[in-house]
Amino acid sequence: MLTDLDTPALILDAQKVKANCDHLRTRLQSMGVSLRPHVKTAKSLEVVRMAHGGGTGPITVSTLKEAEFFFSHGFKDILYAVGIAPNKFARAAALKRAGCTLSVVLDGVQAAKAFKEFCSAESLAIPALIEIDTDDHRAGVKPDAPELTDIGAILGSQLGGVMTHCGNSYISKSTDEIRGWAKTEREGIVHSSGRLRAAGHAAPVASVGSTPTAMFGETFAGLTEVRAGVYVFHDLVMAGLGVCRTDEIAMSVLASVIGHQAQKGWIITDAGWMALSRDRGTAKQAVDQGYGLVCDVDGRALGDLVVIDANQEHGVIARRGGLPAKLEDFPVGKMVRVLPNHACATGAQHGAYQVVNGSTAVAATWERFNGW
Amino acid sequence: MLTDLDTPALILDAQKVKANCDHLRTRLQSMGVSLRPHVKTAKSLEVVRMAHGGGTGPITVSTLKEAEFFFSHGFKDILYAVGIAPNKFARAAALKRAGCTLSVVLDGVQAAKAFKEFCSAESLAIPALIEIDTDDHRAGVKPDAPELTDIGAILGSQLGGVMTHCGNSYISKSTDEIRGWAKTEREGIVHSSGRLRAAGHAAPVASVGSTPTAMFGETFAGLTEVRAGVYVFHDLVMAGLGVCRTDEIAMSVLASVIGHQAQKGWIITDAGWMALSRDRGTAKQAVDQGYGLVCDVDGRALGDLVVIDANQEHGVIARRGGLPAKLEDFPVGKMVRVLPNHACATGAQHGAYQVVNGSTAVAATWERFNGW
Repeated sequence: MLTDLDTPALILDAQKVKANCDHLRTRLQSMGVSLRPHVKTAKSLEVVRMAHGGGTGPITVSTLKEAEFFFSHGFKDILYAVGIAPNKFARAAALKRAGCTLSVVLDGVQAAKAFKEFCSAESLAIPALIEIDTDDHRAGVKPDAPELTDIGAILGSQLGGVMTHCGNSYISKSTDEIRGWAKTEREGIVHSSGRLRAAGHAAPVASVGSTPTAMFGETFAGLTEVRAGVYVFHDLVMAGLGVCRTDEIAMSVLASVIGHQAQKGWIITDAGWMALSRDRGTAKQAVDQGYGLVCDVDGRALGDLVVIDANQEHGVIARRGGLPAKLEDFPVGKMVRVLPNHACATGAQHGAYQVVNGSTAVAATWERFNGW
Repeated sequence: MLTDLDTPALILDAQKVKANCDHLRTRLQSMGVSLRPHVKTAKSLEVVRMAHGGGTGPITVSTLKEAEFFFSHGFKDILYAVGIAPNKFARAAALKRAGCTLSVVLDGVQAAKAFKEFCSAESLAIPALIEIDTDDHRAGVKPDAPELTDIGAILGSQLGGVMTHCGNSYISKSTDEIRGWAKTEREGIVHSSGRLRAAGHAAPVASVGSTPTAMFGETFAGLTEVRAGVYVFHDLVMAGLGVCRTDEIAMSVLASVIGHQAQKGWIITDAGWMALSRDRGTAKQAVDQGYGLVCDVDGRALGDLVVIDANQEHGVIARRGGLPAKLEDFPVGKMVRVLPNHACATGAQHGAYQVVNGSTAVAATWERFNGW
């Protein structure tokens, strides 16, 4: 039972994970585009298998450690979706030589030259996708930039295609706005692909992705695949965007009440930012959930109770806006579950998931890993 | 050499750690008060030994896992400084039975009754300190609260004394203000001790602590010990407070340049929030350091270059305020070192320290741990 666990602990409701996975897989299947789930959220074999309906399949990784782990567990088709640094070339080569269908990402002439030179010296043809910038937020070449075809020319037969991630979808104010970003993502990739093909490249891969655009995109025509990560768990940022309901969030942090501040109506718990993460992703949304929304041990949200502040190993719970909680309902030792702002960040604070299936019975422990 | 490492990686300059440790140890020795370093920052055997000048000694822990680890490595005198939840009583008892001089902390009648009942049933006399609230921020009983002596009466012979942590010292605007908080901490504890002693308790321990107040407190008269954690490494929050210089910060994150946004003057690296943490502790200080201050691979700060944004595995470097960096100085593959806002949070994102001694030669790898 959850009430027998030490706290804090990371809880995963596998029923919700399965429903979230099935929903997006079915949606994209019906729209005729492949799903390449991003494993950076879960970093768990069991969850990623669930994302593929029980087996293996193409995956996206954010670190070569993820690539190595999942490859060693039967996942062959792997996109390393962070611009590759030269000091990672050797590990990428080792994966390729071991039989991994690895692709990498880069977004500039310098990186393309360095990578091409390495691959030529090693006689390895690892495909590289060019990252396209469709949101002005991070990495990537603009769809119209002259540099795009320069990079294509350097990569030559190793040009795998193009990919983008529209992080702006995370700061949308409505689902209509998300649809707009999905259109921007798609058009940026279709345009870039077109330019590279016009320049004589096959550029077979046309890859987009973020959970909001994957969930709301109205067409994926011209694209070969969609990447998404956080949809397997969802979180309060996704709920604030209208991408999911709070009762679809599969991850929570189990905490114990350790004390009170009676005059302020505060409940003090043993889940601080070490357990919840420092992520304040809902701070700029319409509803600020503090460091997380508080549920009872069965996983039902308790009105407007949120974690209003967090120290390393202390959480402070009160009603949204700092209003006092009803302390008599939360004696010392009582357990609550806190829904995370950002599942990727909260997950990273833990080494394992305690798995339930809609009840408080612990059905399994699933390992997860961190590091590079 | 640092340049041979995979990135991102957590770097520790052991010379700086030693100087930081020696400074506070010497200061408190000369002021006649014991130091009980808080191991939650480093979670490393080598660092905590350094805090004690090479051996063992009293320590403060934030988790029972820290207590168990350090006890198994010869540290006998341990204060678990987070209010204890009933589901942790059994682990505390196991430590006590194994010979650990363990003290715990609590701050309310409910917790005191539960703990006293457990100890009586188990025939164990584990001392409990009452947490005193000297900053209105978190847990604790006010020095003047009637509840203080009620808790003392419940604990009886198990009352170990009082402790406080003045988190407000972290939001001081000047070192004078820090001195003021040190006075508040001391007076709160001296007053609380006095009340408990007047009520007939020995209440031997009078414990205060935070790095700023430990570094600037003008007297520790009436106190038995000072707790501090982050001083072993220091960080940008401490530098912003005037508690240390940036060149005294012992921790940094090694990152590789993976690309650029030429029009914006951005350098993209492979150290995002997964490597740096989501902590934005300098956001409200006079100088906002973004997600960290950028140094060259030798550890020298590069003017006003900071990490202006961070995704999971991407960092964006530009000059403070978003001004463009000089990209030609940062080709793809170049390495930089990023000083952290908050060493406790950044450390927690990593499994080990790569140790240097003022140069770029890697002298050792020191394990660190996370979890509960």
